[in-house]
Amino acid sequence: MQRYRDSEIRSPRGNQLTAKSWLTEAPLRMLMNNLDPEVAENPKELVVYGGIGRAARNWQCFDKIVETLKNLEDDETLLVQSGKPVGVFKTHKDAPRVLIANSNLVPHWANWQHFNELDGKGLAMYGQMTAGSWIYIGSQGIVQGTYETFVEAGRQHYAGDLTGKWILTAGLGGMGGAQPLAASLAGACSLNIECQQSRIDFRLQTRYIDEQADNLDDALSRIEKYTKSGKAISIALHANAAQILPELVKRGIRPDMVTDQTSAHDPLNGYLPIGWTWDEYRQRGKSEPETVIKAAKQSMALHVKAMLDFQQQGIPTFDYGNNIRQMALEEGVSNAFDFPGFVPAYIRPLFCRGIGPFRWAALSGDPEDIYKTDAKVKELIPDDAHLHHWLNMARQRISFQGLPARICWVGLGLRAKLGLAFNEMVRSGELSAPIVIGRDHLDSGSVASPNRETESMQDGSDAVSDWPLLNALLNTASGATWVSLHHGGGVGMGFSQHSGVVIVCDGTAEADARIARVLTNDPATGVMRHADAGYEIAINCAREQGLNLPMMA
Amino acid sequence: MQRYRDSEIRSPRGNQLTAKSWLTEAPLRMLMNNLDPEVAENPKELVVYGGIGRAARNWQCFDKIVETLKNLEDDETLLVQSGKPVGVFKTHKDAPRVLIANSNLVPHWANWQHFNELDGKGLAMYGQMTAGSWIYIGSQGIVQGTYETFVEAGRQHYAGDLTGKWILTAGLGGMGGAQPLAASLAGACSLNIECQQSRIDFRLQTRYIDEQADNLDDALSRIEKYTKSGKAISIALHANAAQILPELVKRGIRPDMVTDQTSAHDPLNGYLPIGWTWDEYRQRGKSEPETVIKAAKQSMALHVKAMLDFQQQGIPTFDYGNNIRQMALEEGVSNAFDFPGFVPAYIRPLFCRGIGPFRWAALSGDPEDIYKTDAKVKELIPDDAHLHHWLNMARQRISFQGLPARICWVGLGLRAKLGLAFNEMVRSGELSAPIVIGRDHLDSGSVASPNRETESMQDGSDAVSDWPLLNALLNTASGATWVSLHHGGGVGMGFSQHSGVVIVCDGTAEADARIARVLTNDPATGVMRHADAGYEIAINCAREQGLNLPMMA
Ligand SMILES: NC(=O)c1ccc[n+]([C@@H]2O[C@H](COP(=O)([O-])OP(=O)(O)OC[C@H]3O[C@@H](n4cnc5c(N)ncnc54)[C@H](O)[C@@H]3O)[C@@H](O)[C@H]2O)c1
Ligand SMILES: NC(=O)c1ccc[n+]([C@@H]2O[C@H](COP(=O)([O-])OP(=O)(O)OC[C@H]3O[C@@H](n4cnc5c(N)ncnc54)[C@H](O)[C@@H]3O)[C@@H](O)[C@H]2O)c1
Repeated sequence: MQRYRDSEIRSPRGNQLTAKSWLTEAPLRMLMNNLDPEVAENPKELVVYGGIGRAARNWQCFDKIVETLKNLEDDETLLVQSGKPVGVFKTHKDAPRVLIANSNLVPHWANWQHFNELDGKGLAMYGQMTAGSWIYIGSQGIVQGTYETFVEAGRQHYAGDLTGKWILTAGLGGMGGAQPLAASLAGACSLNIECQQSRIDFRLQTRYIDEQADNLDDALSRIEKYTKSGKAISIALHANAAQILPELVKRGIRPDMVTDQTSAHDPLNGYLPIGWTWDEYRQRGKSEPETVIKAAKQSMALHVKAMLDFQQQGIPTFDYGNNIRQMALEEGVSNAFDFPGFVPAYIRPLFCRGIGPFRWAALSGDPEDIYKTDAKVKELIPDDAHLHHWLNMARQRISFQGLPARICWVGLGLRAKLGLAFNEMVRSGELSAPIVIGRDHLDSGSVASPNRETESMQDGSDAVSDWPLLNALLNTASGATWVSLHHGGGVGMGFSQHSGVVIVCDGTAEADARIARVLTNDPATGVMRHADAGYEIAINCAREQGLNLPMMA
Repeated sequence: MQRYRDSEIRSPRGNQLTAKSWLTEAPLRMLMNNLDPEVAENPKELVVYGGIGRAARNWQCFDKIVETLKNLEDDETLLVQSGKPVGVFKTHKDAPRVLIANSNLVPHWANWQHFNELDGKGLAMYGQMTAGSWIYIGSQGIVQGTYETFVEAGRQHYAGDLTGKWILTAGLGGMGGAQPLAASLAGACSLNIECQQSRIDFRLQTRYIDEQADNLDDALSRIEKYTKSGKAISIALHANAAQILPELVKRGIRPDMVTDQTSAHDPLNGYLPIGWTWDEYRQRGKSEPETVIKAAKQSMALHVKAMLDFQQQGIPTFDYGNNIRQMALEEGVSNAFDFPGFVPAYIRPLFCRGIGPFRWAALSGDPEDIYKTDAKVKELIPDDAHLHHWLNMARQRISFQGLPARICWVGLGLRAKLGLAFNEMVRSGELSAPIVIGRDHLDSGSVASPNRETESMQDGSDAVSDWPLLNALLNTASGATWVSLHHGGGVGMGFSQHSGVVIVCDGTAEADARIARVLTNDPATGVMRHADAGYEIAINCAREQGLNLPMMA
């Protein structure tokens, strides 16, 4: 069982097939793209993002998935179980080519301890959300979501204007690294605490962050300077958030917004305890995991207490989906959940209309293909200034990582419209090779996660996970190219169940039919789920879009 | 929200459609059949079996499911979420007509307390295994499984001869009621303790049990008489098992085999504490659930202690999949798991070859249709004496309940062969209407349940639930007629995840293709799962049957 391999993976480019069809070439390229050094956090250990979110269980499994996809026929389906290719079965042309289940555990055993035990025996893999389901596209994937969140928070708390305001946060990892850029795009300054210099360097290189401060005093004086002059500059600080936040509280410093994106969901691998070096943390994690977990959670408790202090001063404070409140709660911070998660606070109204992190990638590897799709989006959605602004800024400020890709939050109706248009562009030769369309598992109808996406549902159905399971079954029945079911993404073992979907636009008429079904049904399940919970916006959306929801009629 | 309705449901019979095709008529009839008073334990409250295993969330949902199925087109799919029809979506002809997810909860919240809270708000339904997935066929469904278990135990412990032996057990509910008949068919006497007289009456009526004793002394003298004379007679005793078992230990009575099928998995609804009447138990369950649960679990602890005492005397003792050991463990019986579950003890070798509770029902309602399929099975499997014996006895001793049905444990290879033959019989008119083919969720590839079906897996992967999820996704991709994903069946909330599948033989060529795929792929996932865990029997079976398991090559 080989976990580490000193090799560099990069997806093939161009329009020549290495597999037997684009429906198998696409998962092949996207798996490899997930491990592209431009994309993945630690590709040599198969880690894509989010702590230990992997693309394959080990290198033997990776090799075998690649080999199997190369030989897979158009009426066969490959099953992947926690990153291992376990079977190939005869299905049919309209069935998915790959079906994936990652990290799922029977609830009573669904905790990190049991997972780590299995992982140690080579029997498990943490799939996070898009790591194990092969549709991670680097930090861009999260930029728009973070941007939408900051913008919405600005709308709610600062009359829509974040000029001269600053956001305090931590974590510059695979997803957290999007925060400084998103803050700048939204017009705010930001102070970003990160305990690994390498992560800061990576964000400076890719222009996601503007400057690094030498120390806390330097950081604060930069913040003061830029907020005064109204410049939306992002600043990194190499430090431990659990130390810095209480210090800021003590000093009476008032940020304008507070959140966090350390990998708190995974205390063994993703959150540095106060006073430790990262290396020490990683090494002792192997020999004395219990001690390490305890230390990490104790630091999280301090971190959350400081966040609560900020909130009590009236500063908008929210959890950004890393389960840090739960960890603090387990360490005795009984009011940890006093500040809200970002979904009920800012994202749910979008989910009610099936709007979420829709995305696509150009299998050609050619940035022009994405620019052409950008133009097509503007053409088809001519009157959405906010969306046009996003596309313009994305083109200017976001470096592609790996295969060129675009993310664009749109909902029920528009997703299918865009998908069909892209397929037509492939058919006509306007694009140089097929496009894959997917989304995050964090989406309207695809996740049950009571501390994050389904926190504080109106009817109390936060923990009901029938919905993501139905979403995966329906996407399979609709003819998606690959479908996945994961457990524990974002918030860690025990706390979420969610599903992913990807569909290929290969330019064929068969793809038209599949795209129309999948890109309608997938967001429709989100509208359905929120309508069922009683949200007016969703009920109205269902009516407008003509959904058939039997108990609503 | 109407939970109770004073009406009697009975499936339509004959070959006239009430829906638009047999693919929608079939789930309609099987849903109704699940609630046939001959089939269901408490149909007026929609309860099919296994404590509170329901077919639909409430009567409004039932009506709407029926109405929706009647109107459903051949390229549409109905989604059912915990017994509620939540959406109809465009799919395609080879997609399932119904996709079901019941009782699924995010792991951290996957316990009875949270479930009951949701249930109280009308947001949940316990689907058990085949209750919420509409392929329960009454006690027959379990007779062969229980029979196979007793026979295998006889083989292991009594050189294959149970003459003059007696089995001690409890619970004569929906499934437990199969025990006395299965014991008789296997050649043994049995003493069956049941605390509700109505349940005993029902089993006497349907000839599943032979006699009722007046009291314990009477029961023991009957046992003595019949074991001496070598007659395989079954005896019911109206009493509380938690009281009787310790009493038997005290008296030094030695049964030849000990097990139990009370609904211990559900302490609030399925297990009577010592000293309580059933009515009192049910009523106080509503007003003071905590007290009731505690009392039930305390009695279970005494029950399990007595079972452990029997085992220490060398008497074959096993858990029959009701999670009673876990409940006792939680009440401080630290060695509760000293006696094994029936799966690792007796069933796993069958699972390794994809063998499990395969079953089918005649939508015509005509018993002749089933007798013709019985004959076809004998014709196609001419040299399996054990199977022929089963079919003969089943015809003689088992009264049909609701739509005539047959269960027959067969595995990979034979399932598809039989399915195709039945479809041919429908096509040729030999059978008077279509047949549905399904199975229990307790099957080779469809369940993760560490206290039951996946107890003590060779590689320690008991709790990995990727497998049933992949099974459901693959059955969906293969063109099953309906597919379901449940949580908590058999062993209760938190302890299992499992999937169901049903396929219709409507005599068409399209059905041939679907049947060949589904009835191959479904048991093949079981062989795959056991081969992956390292079982030689499964690895050999995979080779013989030519399965494509990439990491095994
Ligand atoms: N939309 C969402 O809900 C959403 C979006 C993005 C991320 N998340 C969550 O946010 C978390 C981060 O995701 P990621 O992909 O960036 O993970 P990651 O593991 O790649 O990055 C986490 C970063 O936090 C840093 N860090 C750890 N402890 C720290 C400490 N005490 N002080 C300062 N820095 C510290 C690490 O060095 C690392 O760079 C995850 O829990 C993820 O699930 C949620
Ligand atoms: N193959 C399997 O794994 C398998 C098969 C059948 C049943 N089961 C399990 O067995 C249990 C029974 O299933 P069912 O469908 O028959 O349930 P059920 O609820 O219909 O029947 C349970 C019966 O036990 C009786 N009972 C409860 N407490 C008792 C006590 N203290 N003493 C005597 N009788 C008592 C009840 O009156 C009831 O008739 C369930 O937990 C089920 O999951 C497992």
